[in-house]
Parts: sequence; C-alpha cells; structure tokens
Amino acid sequence: MSVPEAGAKPPTSSDVARLAGVSRSTVSYVLNSPPGVRVSAQTRERVMLAVRELGYAPSAPARSLRSGNSDVVLFPLPLQPMGQLLEAFIDELTEALNRHELSLLIHADRTSRGADAARQWAALRPLAVMAESNRLTGGAVDVLKRAGVRAIFAWGREEHPDVPTAIFDNRDTGRVAVRHLIDRGHRRLACLVPSGPLAFLGEERWAGAQAAAEDAGVSLRRVDVGYVREDVLAIVRQWQRESEPPTAVFAGNDDFALMIISALRECGWSVPDDMAVVGADDLPFCDLVWPRLTSVSMHTRTMGSGASDAITTLIRGRDYRPGGRMVVHPRVVVRESG
Amino acid sequence: MSVPEAGAKPPTSSDVARLAGVSRSTVSYVLNSPPGVRVSAQTRERVMLAVRELGYAPSAPARSLRSGNSDVVLFPLPLQPMGQLLEAFIDELTEALNRHELSLLIHADRTSRGADAARQWAALRPLAVMAESNRLTGGAVDVLKRAGVRAIFAWGREEHPDVPTAIFDNRDTGRVAVRHLIDRGHRRLACLVPSGPLAFLGEERWAGAQAAAEDAGVSLRRVDVGYVREDVLAIVRQWQRESEPPTAVFAGNDDFALMIISALRECGWSVPDDMAVVGADDLPFCDLVWPRLTSVSMHTRTMGSGASDAITTLIRGRDYRPGGRMVVHPRVVVRESG
Repeated sequence: MSVPEAGAKPPTSSDVARLAGVSRSTVSYVLNSPPGVRVSAQTRERVMLAVRELGYAPSAPARSLRSGNSDVVLFPLPLQPMGQLLEAFIDELTEALNRHELSLLIHADRTSRGADAARQWAALRPLAVMAESNRLTGGAVDVLKRAGVRAIFAWGREEHPDVPTAIFDNRDTGRVAVRHLIDRGHRRLACLVPSGPLAFLGEERWAGAQAAAEDAGVSLRRVDVGYVREDVLAIVRQWQRESEPPTAVFAGNDDFALMIISALRECGWSVPDDMAVVGADDLPFCDLVWPRLTSVSMHTRTMGSGASDAITTLIRGRDYRPGGRMVVHPRVVVRESG
Repeated sequence: MSVPEAGAKPPTSSDVARLAGVSRSTVSYVLNSPPGVRVSAQTRERVMLAVRELGYAPSAPARSLRSGNSDVVLFPLPLQPMGQLLEAFIDELTEALNRHELSLLIHADRTSRGADAARQWAALRPLAVMAESNRLTGGAVDVLKRAGVRAIFAWGREEHPDVPTAIFDNRDTGRVAVRHLIDRGHRRLACLVPSGPLAFLGEERWAGAQAAAEDAGVSLRRVDVGYVREDVLAIVRQWQRESEPPTAVFAGNDDFALMIISALRECGWSVPDDMAVVGADDLPFCDLVWPRLTSVSMHTRTMGSGASDAITTLIRGRDYRPGGRMVVHPRVVVRESG
C-alpha cells in the first residue's frame, strides 16, 4: 500500500519546459491553445512527451488564478433529493457542456445556503455556477461575482430577482396530471400526497392538482399517505367500502403509482378499468410494467441541454432570453394505466 | 439580468486584513484554524465581519497551492451508471466526510481513464481521490502522487496493485442470490441476463450465479432479455408451455424482478407459489409492492462510511488494513417474493 510522501513536490511547467527544451510560454501555448497562437506539431509533441515523462498535471487553480481560464461549471447538489432523475440530468448536462469544452463538477454538500455556500463554491474558482434559486441570496450572488464567476444560473420554482432562472414548477405537474384525467372523463378524483423524503414535492403537486380540479369544478380528494405499503393498501380497502369511490388517482409520483397499482390488484381491482392511475417523473419502469404507467414527464434530457445552452450564452457575456428565464413545461406521457 | 463584469477583481486576504486592522497571517489563522494557533474571539469576529463586508471568498486553489491545505475528496463519476444507488452513496459519503471537515466533489466526466483522467482530477488539487480500480493505471497513480494528492483509494471488482481498494464483486451478488434459492429448496432455476445500460452487471452476476449452481449441482438456465416488457412476457409465456419450467428466477436486478412479477401476474401465475423471484440492489420499492421483493443488498450506506474511514486513514498517512483492501459482501434481504 502506498501513499504519496507528504511534501513530494509536483513538477511545474518550468520542469516541463526544461526537459522539452522550450520556453515556459511555449508549454503554456501547447497546453492551453489560446486563440491566435500556433505551435508546430514537432514542438507540441516534444512538450507532450515531457508532460508524460514527468507526470505533469497543469493546475486548473493556478491557471484560473493566472488568467481566469477555468473550464469548470459547478452544480451544487440540490437541497432536495432528485432520486432517479439525478444521474440522467448529470449525464445530459455533462454531455452538452463537453461539446463546449466545459467540465461539470458537482459539489456534494446539499445543506449550505447563501453567502456561506457561495464562499465554498467560489473557493473552487468555477467559470459558472448553476444553483437553486433559493440558495442564491443577494449575498451569495455578490460573493460569486466578486470571485470572478462569469455565469450564474438559477433554477427552481421562483424566478430569481437578479440572475436568469430555469423554472420548474411542480404545481404544473399536478395541474397537467389532473387535467389529463378530467379530459378522459373522470369526475371523482383522488390525489396522493406522500410523506417521506419527497414530501415537499407532494405538497407542490397537490397545490397544482387542486387548482386544476377547482377550475374544472370537479371533485378532488386529498389523501395523505406514508411511505409504507400498508398505508396504501388501507386506502384502497377504504375505497372499496365506499358507494362512490374515486375513479381515478394522481399518485404524486411513480413510486406511489406503482404501489397503488400493486395494492389495487391485491384487492381485485383492475387498472385502468376500475381505477385509472397517473404517476409523475416518468421513470424508466413506467414502460416496463403491466399496465404501462401513464406519467408526467419533466424532460430531464431537455433540462440538461437547455441549462448548458443558457450557461454557455451567459459565459459569452450575452443576456439569456426570453426575459432572463426559461420555463420547463411538464407534459403527460400517456400509456395504459390512465 | 446581470453577469459579473469580466475583469472585476475578487477581494484578497490583504483587503480583509486591511479592513479588519490585522495582519494577513491573522486572517489566515482565522480562516484555516491551523492546529496550535489561537485567535481571540474578538479578533475572529473582526475578521469575519470584514470577510462578510467584502464578500471575500478564500480560494481553495490558492490555499492548496500555498500550504497543501485542500479539503477536497474527489470522486469521479463511475464509468458505468449507478442508477438509483448514486444519490444514496453520495449522501452517505458526504455525511461521513463532513464529520472530518472534508468536502466531496464529484467530477462528472465518466469517460476518461488513465493519465489523461488523472491530469483532469489533479488540476483540481484534491486532497484525496477515490476512483475505479481500472481507471487508475500506473500512469494515473503517478500523476496524482506528483500533484500532491495525499490519498488514493480504488474501488471495483479487482484489487489495485498499488493502492488500497474497496472490492465490490458483482459475481458475489449472483452467487448469494442463487444460493438463497437453492437453500429454499429450488432445483430448477433461471437467471435473467439483462441487456441495456446495466448489461455489464448482468454478465458479472450471471457468472456468480452459474458458479453457485455448479457447486450445488443444480440446474440453472441463462435467459438473455432486452429492456422491454414484451421480451419478459415472451419468456413467461414460454415457461408456461414447458412441462418442467423453472420454479425460481434470479432477475439480475430489481427492475427486472418487478417486470417479471408483473409479467407472471399478467399470465396468471402467482409469486412466490408458482415462481419465486429474487432481485438485486435492494431499491426502495422492494418494500412497497405485493409481494414485497426479496433482493440482494450491496449496503450503499455502509459503503459510503467505509470509504470515508479508509480515505481519512490514508490522509493521516497510515496504511489502510487489512491488506490494503476492504471487501464489501452482499447479502440477501429476504421478503415475500422468494
């Protein structure tokens, strides 16, 4: 087992220059390819040989302190869990940023806010930061700007007063789910409001669902439910005792849609004939079960490439339009369950 | 909409020192709390006031260049997708590292390997790097050591020749799943080998499943299956036509366990009476469906805190024992499905 000896000195660009027999600026030209500078293929090769020989790693921090040349877009992990959407979003954003030779770094502390958080992020000297609207207080924005961050992009439910924002309103998710069920002819609806780690989402989606039902003058009942299957089973058994049970349910998310379908079957009701079920998040398993699950999609893939477009536009120093914000509209992916 | 003006100069620790009326070293003592140095509460407060007033963000890069004082543990996103396990693992590792005042940074490029990858990681001047064994070539380890990375921790199926390794062998997952079914009295088994993004896992798990069946002299058939529910349905229909179909199936992962249960029900077979089903990964939904899903768990939570222990031990410059490796053993979480 081997760890590097403390105090072992990393090779510098001077060491590379010495070994390659070129100047330090030539090393820098080869490694940074600034516009307007040309280096012969032969020189480039000599430098790269020396880089490999010495195991030289150009220091992004040093570079960024010298020339503001960081290529890092920093994405602090959201305050709230993203569940299965996290990896898809990261991959899409990374791929889109890589096309602009930008790297995505994820800061894993998901508790800090405001100027404290911004100081941690700024310490990494990123070129751009994409963070939740409600973590970017005025103080935070100030810290980031003073640290030379070129692009600050917010996301969340509310538009940020000072920086461009991608708006994802989970009330829209509830709204389109309930509208879809109403369009299908349902008049007695239920909406599950799950507890557990994603409870905040449940409340927002409920608010949208309620608004849509009121608009249409349709009955919608709120059903609070714990993250245990016995709760879900109890709800279905209760419906079976009623003379006019709901005919359709918006389950709040796909996990609960799966649970409610499983519980309905356990009780001998069929989906969608006895009860239509709609989930949200459009997780991969929606396509894999019987009946396939109708779900509200937030377009993780579109979000990633949209965010990348906004960030690169900001870095180039141009306003991001329209109106400094992009609104992500959820839509219903219709399958057999409802 | 506002972006920071290019060229706006971030405040320095000298600016903070001037405003607070103290020396630069005092600012550094307050911000870095080195062992053996005491600063009065009053002075500390004056410095922190100046920090806030100026919006000063100490630069981790600058600090690490100066004193090797980075607090960053870098985790490059794995070459292979982690799916739902990613967020749980990140959260557990972050929490454990935070107890040691270390921060977790995730590098989102999941394509690079070897010295090229190491140069990217080293540019961030991390204190520690935790990466897949097969990305840490000799050249990569060299680059990281020369860049002053204090702890290099590998993980993967194979033990790394030069650095301590956390070993997660997916063959063990297949092995314990099949052993469990044999212990339950099953003698005709099937193992699904899923295609799609997690195909590599399927092959490894199949290898372990096969070894366990051979050891016990029990029949195990390999069933290749695409990531579409029609494939899974076709498999069940085929079994229904057989005079001696398998009595138990290891589904390769929980998603496929869910699909196969859904397909079995669609065809009128009950779980576990007509067919026992075991999944792998122990995803949250295992507890939420009927019947609850028996699954092989890799202990994401244990992995996170174990990795943190190993990394902090390495940073302190002590060997990580036993034998420079930790082996993560999967176990079966028994529920009703098999």
